[in-house]
Amino acid sequence: MSEEGSAKIHLALVHFPVYNKTGEVVASSVTTLDVHDISRICRTFAVENFYVSTPLQTQKELVARIIGHWVDGYGAEYNPTRKEALLSCKVIDTVDEAAKDIEKRYGIAPQIVVTDAKNFPQSVGYKEMRSEFQKGGHFLLLFGTGWGLEKNLANSADYILNPIDGLDGFNHLPVRAAIAIILDRLLSKTE
Amino acid sequence: MSEEGSAKIHLALVHFPVYNKTGEVVASSVTTLDVHDISRICRTFAVENFYVSTPLQTQKELVARIIGHWVDGYGAEYNPTRKEALLSCKVIDTVDEAAKDIEKRYGIAPQIVVTDAKNFPQSVGYKEMRSEFQKGGHFLLLFGTGWGLEKNLANSADYILNPIDGLDGFNHLPVRAAIAIILDRLLSKTE
Repeated sequence: MSEEGSAKIHLALVHFPVYNKTGEVVASSVTTLDVHDISRICRTFAVENFYVSTPLQTQKELVARIIGHWVDGYGAEYNPTRKEALLSCKVIDTVDEAAKDIEKRYGIAPQIVVTDAKNFPQSVGYKEMRSEFQKGGHFLLLFGTGWGLEKNLANSADYILNPIDGLDGFNHLPVRAAIAIILDRLLSKTE
Repeated sequence: MSEEGSAKIHLALVHFPVYNKTGEVVASSVTTLDVHDISRICRTFAVENFYVSTPLQTQKELVARIIGHWVDGYGAEYNPTRKEALLSCKVIDTVDEAAKDIEKRYGIAPQIVVTDAKNFPQSVGYKEMRSEFQKGGHFLLLFGTGWGLEKNLANSADYILNPIDGLDGFNHLPVRAAIAIILDRLLSKTE
């Protein structure tokens, strides 16, 4: 769905491993509204695949049921644009599984791009990331729920994006809002 | 909270008059999650006041109860950043009341900026709007819920912003996501 010659973008919303409020590594709960909002945001910016990553079986069933209702069930007729948005949404166990799914479908492994509310020494800016996208290939953007992605995910990534700077130090955006802003910065054609 | 010399920005989330799915003018229901998400987004971009506009008494009480819980109640201790975000959130009847509140507090009437998913002949771009902000003054940004703001609100506004163009024609962002993207485009200092 992206333009020919430019990169194909995929996104994973990660529920494990993430930090909780006290800094422990946990599996966070899926927020059903995230599935809807982020599907619509991904569809707006022509993201190829939106992966909801959770290792918890009951949570996977919950997300699968939401997608089923809107893609195949009554919801598909009631709200066709929601169906269209959810068509690219998939439930998976781990980030690794998302990367393998991309490799299987497109014959090329994605480069991993981590987003985080903190700065890392190797963080890159949005213009620089856009330039990388111009070279083509597949990129998998990871967004953590809860209090953010476990740090090994960041340390093993190909790229870490700069955090979104607020105007006076408040740095508590909902993940839904961070995804909207970051996809707009990276993918929008608007001047 | 904005920089000296630049404009002060206010935002209203409008629940009446807006369109419903079939094009009738209605008062839409307040989504409690909007109150939280948009408060955090507004706080991130140093918006002065976030007005939740609804004429329905029960809805006003609902929003006031949410704010009370997190600003004065148990929630203030449990989650101080949520308190901080909600401090600038106010419930009002109408867009007019928001404009009057700004005039009363700051001694100057705000210019009204309408956002819409449709294009109008007089729509302006984001760079142009940023230039207007450089001149100073107060601006009140209106975002419609439901199927968008009733058209007289747009026609009587000082500015109408260009819609957010998706990459291949899908134009169904949640209002929360549209607000995140538009505030980032208009107010972010990030290159």
